[in-house]
This record gives sequence, C-alpha cells and structure tokens, in this order.
Amino acid sequence: MTRLGISLPILQAPMAGANGVGMAAAVSSAGGLGALPCGMLNPQGVLEQVGDLRSQTNGAINLNFFCHVAPTEEDAAQRRWRAALAPYYKELGIPGDTVVQAPARLPFDENMCRVVEQAQPQVVSFHFGLPEAGLLARVKATGAVVLSSATTVREARWLEKHGCDVIVAQGCEAGGHRGMFLEADVGTQIGTMALVPQVVDAVQCPVVAAGGISDSRGIVAALALGADAVQIGTAYLLTPQSLVSPLHRRALEQAEENFTALTNLFSGRAARGLTNRLMQDLGPLADQVSAFPNAGTALAPLKAAAEAQGKADFSSLWSGQNNHGLQAVDAGELTRTWAADALGLMNQMAPKAGD
Amino acid sequence: MTRLGISLPILQAPMAGANGVGMAAAVSSAGGLGALPCGMLNPQGVLEQVGDLRSQTNGAINLNFFCHVAPTEEDAAQRRWRAALAPYYKELGIPGDTVVQAPARLPFDENMCRVVEQAQPQVVSFHFGLPEAGLLARVKATGAVVLSSATTVREARWLEKHGCDVIVAQGCEAGGHRGMFLEADVGTQIGTMALVPQVVDAVQCPVVAAGGISDSRGIVAALALGADAVQIGTAYLLTPQSLVSPLHRRALEQAEENFTALTNLFSGRAARGLTNRLMQDLGPLADQVSAFPNAGTALAPLKAAAEAQGKADFSSLWSGQNNHGLQAVDAGELTRTWAADALGLMNQMAPKAGD
Repeated sequence: MTRLGISLPILQAPMAGANGVGMAAAVSSAGGLGALPCGMLNPQGVLEQVGDLRSQTNGAINLNFFCHVAPTEEDAAQRRWRAALAPYYKELGIPGDTVVQAPARLPFDENMCRVVEQAQPQVVSFHFGLPEAGLLARVKATGAVVLSSATTVREARWLEKHGCDVIVAQGCEAGGHRGMFLEADVGTQIGTMALVPQVVDAVQCPVVAAGGISDSRGIVAALALGADAVQIGTAYLLTPQSLVSPLHRRALEQAEENFTALTNLFSGRAARGLTNRLMQDLGPLADQVSAFPNAGTALAPLKAAAEAQGKADFSSLWSGQNNHGLQAVDAGELTRTWAADALGLMNQMAPKAGD
Repeated sequence: MTRLGISLPILQAPMAGANGVGMAAAVSSAGGLGALPCGMLNPQGVLEQVGDLRSQTNGAINLNFFCHVAPTEEDAAQRRWRAALAPYYKELGIPGDTVVQAPARLPFDENMCRVVEQAQPQVVSFHFGLPEAGLLARVKATGAVVLSSATTVREARWLEKHGCDVIVAQGCEAGGHRGMFLEADVGTQIGTMALVPQVVDAVQCPVVAAGGISDSRGIVAALALGADAVQIGTAYLLTPQSLVSPLHRRALEQAEENFTALTNLFSGRAARGLTNRLMQDLGPLADQVSAFPNAGTALAPLKAAAEAQGKADFSSLWSGQNNHGLQAVDAGELTRTWAADALGLMNQMAPKAGD
C-alpha cells in the first residue's frame, strides 16, 4: 500500500457523522489511512478540517465525497414520506410541518473539486460511483490516488474501466451506506468472503476489503482473499475519537442482543444499522421513503424529540455485522495493535518445518 | 482436525440431491472429510451407501441428517400452496391434482439412530439443530464426533450447551439450506467474515467455517478468522462426482450473469440458490409456501414438465455466493490442490526477516 502513502494496510472508513479530524489524525499518525468524510461539509468546512488534520499528522489522508445525483420532484416525495410518518408526529405531539435543520449530504461538484486541488490530499475516495469524467480527471491530475467502492463484480469492473485506481470491495457485512451505484436491488449484495476473491479475479488494480473486519483476524483473512488492505469502520465507533451519540454508543455496546439490517429509512439509500423501532414498524426497506439524501429531513424532528427522551427510535444506528466486543480504545492504538497482531497471526499460521 | 480423523482441514458439505458416495469417497480418500447426505434416504439406503463408500475409501466419513420436526396440518397448507401455483399448472397444461413422486426429507429418528450404531461413522452431522437428547446420547456413545450448523452466535452457544462437539459456523454466503433452528427471521443471517470470529469467541469447541469459501484463499481466510477447518459445498458442484442436473450445471457455469437469493419456495425453509423464474415471480421468500420439507411436492409436476422443455423455472438451483469460475475437476484432486495451495499461501503471507 505504498501507493496510498501508508505503512499499515488499514484504511479507516470515512463515516459521515461518526468521525471527524480526531479519528483521521489518530489513524494516519499510526501509519494507517485516516479519512475525512466531506459529504456533509461545505467547501470552507473541508478546508478548515484539512488544515486542522494536517496540523495533527504528517500521515497520508483520504478525503471522502458522495457522488450521487441530487433527486428531483422532491416536494411530492417529501409529502408522501411525511404522510407515512404522520402517526409518529402525532404520537410525539409535533406539528407535521416542523422543520429541524439537519446536515445536508451534497454530491461532489466543481466547488469541491477546487477544494481537492487546493488541499492536495494523498487519497480521494468516492461513494456511489465516481464523479463525471471532467471532475475525475482534475482530481487525478492533482496526483491523488482515487478510490471508490464496489459491491458487485460488475461495479468493480466499471470502476476500473472509468479510472478508479483502487477498489474497495464492500461486502454486505459493512455498516453504513452501501456503495451501490449500478445495482438497485439489495439482493445483489454479497458477503465479503465471496465478494473479495471474485473482485480480485475480475480487476487488475489493488483491492481493499471492507465489511465484517473488526480485528487482526479479519485483516489476515482479507489479505488471504487477495486484498491489499482492509477498510475498517464499525470497530472504530467506540474509540474516544468517535462522534457517535451516547445513544448510538450504548446501542453498539449492547449489540450482542441486537441485529443489523439494511435500511433505506434514514437517508433514502440502503445502509446497514442496528434494528430500531422505525425499522421494525415500517420494515427496514420501505417504498414510501423519499429519495436520497433527503429522507432524514422528515425524520429530524422525530429523532430530536425521541432522543430528548433517551430513545433511538428514529435515529440511524449505523453498524456492521461484526459488532460484538468492540473496544473503547484510542483509534491510533487500535490501528497499531491490529497491524502488529496481524503480523503475529501470519507468523503463527505459517507452516513450520516438519509440518 | 485430528479429532475428525482427517489430515486436511476440508469438509465436503453434505448436499442432498447433489452428492452421493462418489464425491464423499473422493474427498475422504484425499484426506478431507467426505459426507453422505442421508436426509433423503431410508435406513436401508444409508446402510447400502455406507457399504459402498467404505469399499471405496479408508478415510473418515460423515453421515449427515436433518433434524427438523415434521409439519402437521399438511393438507390445508398443501391446498394453499397448490392454489398459489395454479396458474403454472394451467400454463403447462398439468391437472392440478397431479402427483409426481419426489424424494422425501425425513428427520433423524430411532431407525436412523440404529443405522448410525451399526455403521459407526467417524462423524455424524445434523442440520436444523440436534436430535432429542436420548438419540443424541446414543449417537455420541458410538464414538462419533457430532457436528451441527450455527447461523448466529446464539445458535452456536445453544449447540455447545446441548452436546455438539464441533460447530459449523454457516455464513450467509453458503448455498443450500440455512441451518437456522432458533432463528426464524432471515434478517439474522450474517456473513462468514462477521460470523466466524464471533462464534469462535463465544464457544470453546472447534469451529468449522462455511459460506463463500471456494478455494485456497477462502481456506486460509477462514483459518485466520479462528476456524479449525472449512466446509465447502458449491465449489464441488461442477466436479464429475456431482449429481446436479445438466440444467443446474449449466446455470452454475453461467453464474457470473446471475445472483443467488435465500428462498423458501422449494422446500419451505430458507435456502440459497440461483435466482430463477419462480423466485422472480413470487418473490424468493413467500408466505403461501407449505411447511418444510413438503413444499417441493406441489412443485414436482411443474419441475418435471419445465425440465423436459429444458427450463429450470421450477427447479432449485442451490448455489453459494462465491460461484464464479467453479472448476470441473475431480473432487479429490480439488481437495488436495486447495490444501496444498493453502499451505503455499500461508507460507507466502508469513512476514519475512527484515519486513
């Protein structure tokens, strides 16, 4: 992974809302690749955070952006979604037209491209495909290595063909948003153990394994499958650098009693999180939800009211499937320990003379 | 895996309908653990096949049984399911009351227990939990090592507590029937990369990893996750020893253009197979299906008629998710090659002096 400017084969998953400068700095300083999720920041915010991050680490950094297409016909979709949520507004005594300001998710554009040109990160990663060719060419012209996520072999081939330098093979175990961009059906989403070797066989470029990797065992497993590195998200969520809410943190600590599901309720796109009341009531994948990224707008007043009562009924509790026994340890320390333990495990597994 | 009497850490998955004596003999002779699926045989049939198998190999063998509870109120359920399938009967010009003899799946019972006592296999494995305590004690008294599949941490803990010697952690990638016995909701089923380390941490007994493992890379990955061995099914389906139909074989050869899904349509229980017309039409998981194991009865006339026309519209096409590039190579040869390549890979991965 010298290409990514890192000494340890560990990428911290960009987690908008759950990580910022602190986690990225800790991981990059440890020799992994820290990531700054930029999809919910404006250009000025990105520049400020990059400055802050650079003051804390000399390590390589990864700026992560969404590249969805903003939806049209939003009004009708929002009305439909609010109507589906009306019983909850009534239950919580909230007027149906209440608006709570929630952070917007914006696609990568001209303005963000200028930020990349100015900030010159070692790595730029995208979720939901790649930006249009002109913008991508400008990103690559900065010398940044370009990453994006593939959830199927077909998406991996497409990414390589369209100029992606390193592909994150995102197995179905992964927490948060599926990177799906050619696929629309969650039925196409397969496990890491099946996805990684099939992607490795299908493309020439380096592959990073993601999904279900929470410790050194997962790292060695991913390398065995042919990945060049791993991307880890959930296992960083209890670190002191994590920005998850106390409710989210508690839910993760008790994850052994809970299951995750892919749900579109919180954003409009499929993402994996711990099951909560809204997911149970409406089913985790609902037709009436408004399009990405705005489904959260109508939920925001409910989320705020429920959280004030100590309930995560309407909160996204992103989590991957490998969420038992997560450690509340410094993110840099975790990164170094995982890498050292992975080396130890590989040594231990090597056949000895006489075997 | 000396406990299982094998020299290579590879278990051939018992695949009722897709493997018999030939595949089991080839794998056991190669040093893996060949398995004889007994769930669709009568006691006499099992004894005959065991005799045949023992004449072909001195290796350890695994007799596999279902231990579901046979459903009651079958008539109403069958009528409901036939009604749901009526349009297909009409389309194919088949009278709605047509009965085609299909092999029955029978739960492990007193008679089969006597067969085990007589046949004395090294390993007895169960799917869908364990038989009742009295029968299980008799199986264990023969000296057989007892295996069963867990699909969640909860099921793994239950199996260990109830006397299972070795647990197969069956990740969601696996083809064929889910071993689910405490879980009813397929939403609880998680990927191999997440399941194996969590099960390894939860139980004391040895763990075999299953699901998405199709070559030496998967074997090394599973060992890294803490498994003592792997169970492989799909990757044996194109071997000359496989008993799959020509239509199933062709579907597997073209698997790159297709996806699998968990479906209950063919038996009444969730199992993973390649998507076909029936699954697309009714949705892969349907409420109107009759209970396991008899859903196939009403489908049998449709399956026969469609297959006669060269169509797999009503056939179960069991397959795991790691089904690209399966090899049409002798099952024994495959087993030996995977094991040798796994050793090579572990050697290659070991950090060298100076790293």
